[in-house]
Formats: sequence, C-alpha cells, structure tokens
Amino acid sequence: MNYRVAFENERVRVLEYTDSPGHKTTEHSHPDSVMVTVTAFRRGISSEGKSMDVELPAAVARWLPAQHHSGENIGETDTHTFFVELKESTLPTNDEAEYLGPSES
Amino acid sequence: MNYRVAFENERVRVLEYTDSPGHKTTEHSHPDSVMVTVTAFRRGISSEGKSMDVELPAAVARWLPAQHHSGENIGETDTHTFFVELKESTLPTNDEAEYLGPSES
Repeated sequence: MNYRVAFENERVRVLEYTDSPGHKTTEHSHPDSVMVTVTAFRRGISSEGKSMDVELPAAVARWLPAQHHSGENIGETDTHTFFVELKESTLPTNDEAEYLGPSES
Repeated sequence: MNYRVAFENERVRVLEYTDSPGHKTTEHSHPDSVMVTVTAFRRGISSEGKSMDVELPAAVARWLPAQHHSGENIGETDTHTFFVELKESTLPTNDEAEYLGPSES
C-alpha cells in the first residue's frame, strides 16, 4: 500500500503517501488538498493527456486543487508526503444548492 | 518570527512554525487545524490553567481542535512543523445561521 489513512474526521481525511523510485500510480482523484512534503521528490504527472514533471524539496506545503491524474516517481529517492484532503467546501455552489431543495422562486 | 504564512486561499491558511529549545510563545489561538511535523519535538502546553507535555516524532499528522494556549519548547532540538488551518466549516451551526438573516417563522 502506498496510501495510508493517517486519520479522518468530519472536516478532513489525512493520507500518508510513500513510494520508491520507478513506482507508478494508476489514475486516481484528489479532492482539494494541502500537500506537505516530508522528503524531496521528483514525479512525472499525467492528466487528461498532458504530462509534466514536478520537483519539490522536503518540508514544503503546496495547494493541490481537486484533480484526476496518474504519477510516477522519476527521481532517485523514496517519496514521503502527506495529503490533507478537505471535505465539503464552506459555501454551497449553485449545484450543491440544488440538492438542498427547490428554489423559492 | 516563529510563524510564517506558507500560503493562504479561500479554504485554508497554512502556517510554518519554527523555534529553538527554550522558546516560549505568548497565548494565542488556533482554529481547527491539521498539524504535520517535520521534526520531532517536545513541548509544554498551557491552556486555561492546565499544563501538559506533548512529545511528537517527525513526520506525523495530528488533528488540533480549535484552542487557545501558550507553548514552550522543552526539548533539546529545534521545532519545525506545519499547521493547515481550516476556514469556516461545511455546515452552518445554529449560531452562524442567525447571522444569515432573520428566520422565516
């Protein structure tokens, strides 16, 4: 297992991710998340037919907007990072509001 | 400065905290947050007249419910940790709902 649930409550799910050089993930989704790196890493990310390389140092925090992608450890070191996944957003969007019931108009 | 804003957006504010052995903070508040430790540390925490010691290893994530406290680095190593502060919660509480306008009754 590369992903482990560190903890979860009503507001967040925190995932701990580890892998080794050459490891590839299958396509998967992230909700809006904050990533906090424990180690430096270099990854190839593929999403919707586009590819990019991402290189991050240890001990930085980055915003990861909700997305669907696959990734590969293209560096020479193990990856260790946390994802603080945020649950539903503060204010309902129009789409969400529709689920709450019919409008009053 | 011991606290630095790593980044902020509509949903979170991420703080990076560093200090050295013997450093004391004044009383301050945290909203609901996820703490991700970069280094191990040992702290004395005081809140509402109660004191406790907290010892954490490097590279762990912990839920920090909203609280008011002061702290002191009582270990022998520098502290380095991130706080992912969560902004307003998903669903309005009754108190918050009152701010939105008068009830329809």
